[in-house]
Amino acid sequence: MNPLEAGATIGILGGGQLGRMLAGSGARLGFDISILCPEDRCPAARTAAHHIRAAYEDDAAVLAWARACDVVTYEFENVPVSTVQTLIDQGITVRPGAKPLQASQDRVAEKSFLRACDIATADFAEVNGPSDIAEPLDRFGGNGILKTRRDGYDGKGQVRLESGDDFDAAHKALGNHPCVLEALVPFEREVSVIAARDAAGDMVCYDLPRNQHVNGILRRSVVPCGLSDAVMSQACDAAQRLAEALDYVGVLALEFFVLEDGSLIANEFAPRVHNSGHWTPEACATGQFEQHIRAVAGWPLGPVTRFHDAEMLNLLGDEALVPPETLAADGILTLYGKHDAKTGRKMGHLVRRLDPAS
Amino acid sequence: MNPLEAGATIGILGGGQLGRMLAGSGARLGFDISILCPEDRCPAARTAAHHIRAAYEDDAAVLAWARACDVVTYEFENVPVSTVQTLIDQGITVRPGAKPLQASQDRVAEKSFLRACDIATADFAEVNGPSDIAEPLDRFGGNGILKTRRDGYDGKGQVRLESGDDFDAAHKALGNHPCVLEALVPFEREVSVIAARDAAGDMVCYDLPRNQHVNGILRRSVVPCGLSDAVMSQACDAAQRLAEALDYVGVLALEFFVLEDGSLIANEFAPRVHNSGHWTPEACATGQFEQHIRAVAGWPLGPVTRFHDAEMLNLLGDEALVPPETLAADGILTLYGKHDAKTGRKMGHLVRRLDPAS
Repeated sequence: MNPLEAGATIGILGGGQLGRMLAGSGARLGFDISILCPEDRCPAARTAAHHIRAAYEDDAAVLAWARACDVVTYEFENVPVSTVQTLIDQGITVRPGAKPLQASQDRVAEKSFLRACDIATADFAEVNGPSDIAEPLDRFGGNGILKTRRDGYDGKGQVRLESGDDFDAAHKALGNHPCVLEALVPFEREVSVIAARDAAGDMVCYDLPRNQHVNGILRRSVVPCGLSDAVMSQACDAAQRLAEALDYVGVLALEFFVLEDGSLIANEFAPRVHNSGHWTPEACATGQFEQHIRAVAGWPLGPVTRFHDAEMLNLLGDEALVPPETLAADGILTLYGKHDAKTGRKMGHLVRRLDPAS
Repeated sequence: MNPLEAGATIGILGGGQLGRMLAGSGARLGFDISILCPEDRCPAARTAAHHIRAAYEDDAAVLAWARACDVVTYEFENVPVSTVQTLIDQGITVRPGAKPLQASQDRVAEKSFLRACDIATADFAEVNGPSDIAEPLDRFGGNGILKTRRDGYDGKGQVRLESGDDFDAAHKALGNHPCVLEALVPFEREVSVIAARDAAGDMVCYDLPRNQHVNGILRRSVVPCGLSDAVMSQACDAAQRLAEALDYVGVLALEFFVLEDGSLIANEFAPRVHNSGHWTPEACATGQFEQHIRAVAGWPLGPVTRFHDAEMLNLLGDEALVPPETLAADGILTLYGKHDAKTGRKMGHLVRRLDPAS
């Protein structure tokens, strides 16, 4: 595919806040953005040139939509692999393709893929029923986290377990879905790599943020993350191996646990722009959303020079019901245009620039 | 009007690039943007939640549209005053109101208003026919610029004159419209004040850019502008007097000629965000588009701290036909989504950060 010209149309599968912010950057670069999302009033549709309402599983509708786009990308990792594969089979350029979905939708596939890239992960075991739990739990030292293999996000679809817990109840609480039991990682901090790779194979890596989660939901990201250059460089190298193995085009995020001794254990990766990179537009020469659009458009990446130390705070649920002019007095405010402030729902974020860059 | 809440709708009269960039900032702050513009594929409509196609003179259509908005603003100064007055008479909040349109649409009214604010302008004389030219031209030293009183922009609607020129032809070239003859100002440089005033009457003023025009069209703006603090402060004071006299809410631009001795002669003002402020989103804590949205929404203004020296280059006509990935390698690229690169037409702009801020 040749680099996209001004006025070309970029299709985005998904209409959430990531799509909304991608749409903003896409428009800035002169593109028309077309959103495919089944919901009527999704955040991204209200900032895009076009919005097609269709189910992601409706291959015919998705294909008709994609044919009106010059390139297609996605803003969440649970787009059906088969849908994206159908588009590719029909000659549509989808960036970053079907493989990253396949490798990230299932926790077993994900950990296996990471390990194949020589990236350490926590110990894990497949759990197809309550009777599969005792053995690995014992092996992991008597505790672990039981997670559904698919569709978990923001702390949903997981439960902490100890020897002696009611495994039946635990598995039932996760809908009796196929699960994975993961060993607990005694981490000292969490960080993530936000990396971008363009169609020519060139890569950039933002300075790593330190991430703080509460109840499995990201609350705060801070740059710099306080790790040594050597450790940060190992993390970036890992992201590069992952991106190359996926023949990735676009932005991806790779989350790590950091142990006391500085060793890195990958938690998961996301084949998309990422919440822990939301400070990049305000603190860096090129933000993650523009970077993803550039890559998807076949353009070279922009510089990731960081001008400011920064922190990013998520606004969850009714935190976003504070009058917005009050929120905006406290940092650079981004609201996602969601109308229902459910508990824990990501409604917006604040970025604070902490000058100068250290 | 109470400060707007997240999810409120901001209506913008006009669908050009300024509306497009306002729409981007408005969406960032969680608002739905509704564009009223007669053109089908205008730049702003493709980034907004709603687009109503109607003529600005169609009072009924404009009123129906405005009633679905929580506040209305405009992105160009040639919206009919009567349209805006009708909205106001019907109880619609329009920011910055009708008065700034009245004072800026006609060059005689504009200069008179500036002078009433104790802001110096060039000498000028009304010209209603060729026979009105000789006397003031003589008084101005034998040369001047003949401009239509209304609808001039980007160097259109003006012609330079000297004693002995064919006045009939000159006036005819300007459509025989009512004109104004302005004395030439022997300026050393041009600068502009980009100022914002909120509904509480608080004001901020960005660092002044130095502006370079070619053929009446802005080519380049640079900060800092190289003037002394004292002169910059005079310019900001003038903008403050103007904004207060207009009971202004939003961003306005006041353009100045600077003479060798540092004295300031106002050229014109624009009751809207301004091309010479296009570097502010990339170089300052709050950009002019967000600032205008904040003011219009009834929010307090954001800080205008400047982090970078910067230059802004307009991309005119076929300059924007260079492959966009090449343009984007040369600075921070914004393209307006216009499909017809007519000569001199503003198609986009580039901002270069020149670190650090001086």
